[in-house]
Amino acid sequence: MQSFETLSKQFAEKFDTRHFPEQPASLYDPNEYFLKLGGKRIRPVLCLMGNELFDEIIPDAWQAATAIELFHNFTLIHDDVMDKAPLRRGKQTIHTKYNESTALLAGDVMMVKAYEYLNKISSSYLRKVLALFNRTAVEVCEGQQMDMDYESQDNVSMNDYLKMIELKTSVALAASLKVGALLGGGGERNQNLLYEFGRKLGIAFQVQDDYLDAFGDGNKTGKQIGGDILANKKTFLLIHAMESTPHQKQLKELIKTNPSDKVEKVLRVYQDCKAGEWALQLKNKYLDEALNHLEDIAVLSKRKEPLRALALFLVRRDY
Amino acid sequence: MQSFETLSKQFAEKFDTRHFPEQPASLYDPNEYFLKLGGKRIRPVLCLMGNELFDEIIPDAWQAATAIELFHNFTLIHDDVMDKAPLRRGKQTIHTKYNESTALLAGDVMMVKAYEYLNKISSSYLRKVLALFNRTAVEVCEGQQMDMDYESQDNVSMNDYLKMIELKTSVALAASLKVGALLGGGGERNQNLLYEFGRKLGIAFQVQDDYLDAFGDGNKTGKQIGGDILANKKTFLLIHAMESTPHQKQLKELIKTNPSDKVEKVLRVYQDCKAGEWALQLKNKYLDEALNHLEDIAVLSKRKEPLRALALFLVRRDY
Repeated sequence: MQSFETLSKQFAEKFDTRHFPEQPASLYDPNEYFLKLGGKRIRPVLCLMGNELFDEIIPDAWQAATAIELFHNFTLIHDDVMDKAPLRRGKQTIHTKYNESTALLAGDVMMVKAYEYLNKISSSYLRKVLALFNRTAVEVCEGQQMDMDYESQDNVSMNDYLKMIELKTSVALAASLKVGALLGGGGERNQNLLYEFGRKLGIAFQVQDDYLDAFGDGNKTGKQIGGDILANKKTFLLIHAMESTPHQKQLKELIKTNPSDKVEKVLRVYQDCKAGEWALQLKNKYLDEALNHLEDIAVLSKRKEPLRALALFLVRRDY
Repeated sequence: MQSFETLSKQFAEKFDTRHFPEQPASLYDPNEYFLKLGGKRIRPVLCLMGNELFDEIIPDAWQAATAIELFHNFTLIHDDVMDKAPLRRGKQTIHTKYNESTALLAGDVMMVKAYEYLNKISSSYLRKVLALFNRTAVEVCEGQQMDMDYESQDNVSMNDYLKMIELKTSVALAASLKVGALLGGGGERNQNLLYEFGRKLGIAFQVQDDYLDAFGDGNKTGKQIGGDILANKKTFLLIHAMESTPHQKQLKELIKTNPSDKVEKVLRVYQDCKAGEWALQLKNKYLDEALNHLEDIAVLSKRKEPLRALALFLVRRDY
């Protein structure tokens, strides 16, 4: 069993090749440019790790991992358009460097390319992998829509937010692991436990993301502290603070008036209602549940070590 | 063998059902709204007709036809965004009625839904249908990109324009027919002949489209005569006229200065260089080639009758 780092390096090497033809360059140069921006490649490596949990990694898992990473990049390209984001990983997004229409079409063709890789999977697994992939793709779209809807909603409940995070982030991690397990010959019970491990881990991961935006070290995260606050983004912290009546009023006022020291003042509110401590507890709850699901999978404990280590790393990272 | 009209009616009835869940309504209402706008449903019916050319229509052909129509609607939703089109079939486009982000996401999820229908096809055909579907989807994206690129290019050659039309329009018709043939058990040679029939027919269809914009009857086409001229759209007629040196200069001047009587003046140029007669000849050349391919398919001639009638209708229509 190989660590996330080892597999990540291997995947990066294999993935670092041209995936699209040369022509029309106006369509494919943007795609190649975007893939070259890099990324953590978490999802494809989860697919490989889910595969290796049961046996040696098979060629089909590499095809599926590539499809998963291409699909993820498709969602990023379109999300950047919807969010009007000028930068991705410190570089220009496609719609900024080229234009919106190109970003739309580059995303579309990236998605089709993902299905081309899926179609290389052995016949015995093709339909099942496609079914899981399609379901997850739909859920990711639903999550993105909910995220956009919530931007303009004053009152988003914790349950609504959790559901959105689950769809937008967690299910893709969970499905990546499950595709790997499916191709590795893991039984249905094991597949589902691994899916649940990924789903809970995804939520813990997002709690940590939200936490770092408010309480992280900007030098380590590479992001402006309070970026979510400035953008009036819903986060675990904001929704928790909004659920406390006295703080709700204060926060609504800050969001409405948008003062120049908004970040500072919102952070003060978070401190007052101990949102940081609450978030760490919530994160650990989901992490524990994730690890329990991993524990229950019927393979030797030492095979699970790389996934356990990855879970702890993802959720405890300070960047 | 059933006519296009009969199958079109049958398809419309089957297709007229909810394809998406209720929630999130902000995502799925736009999809259902768009599908309700209707359309000629040419592609799915071509799939059914390609299937019936060889035997009775099988359930898989209905699934594939549905996938093909959903894919087509996905391209329309995104094309409308790229073209900033306010109307589609006289009704508001998704990005006008809702917003651009919703149109993006509604298109994305429409495409995934197409793959969900494809995944219902029997295992023995799944991989082949997927391969053809994926290749065609990529080509349609390439065609759309070329179309956008050509908008800002002064000199587009006839060959470039033909290639773009082939990718943007023809291959989808050709592939719809071929998927039907494949599922109908038609041999490879027959499948390819049917594909070529569709490819050539698609070009003839586009020539007629371009012709009607300049020389049609606005009361019949329901479109403003010279709409393409006003929009400086590349058409078979414009490119033909541009290839004649004296007319090229005049046309470039008209495009540059954009006078109030541009349509009238460009139509005069078309008449001077006999672009209309030339277009009718070109159309008939492609129609003849298409019909020859159909002729060569090794099934009884009477089985081909509905496709022959459809080809003549599509290419001779005056609306």
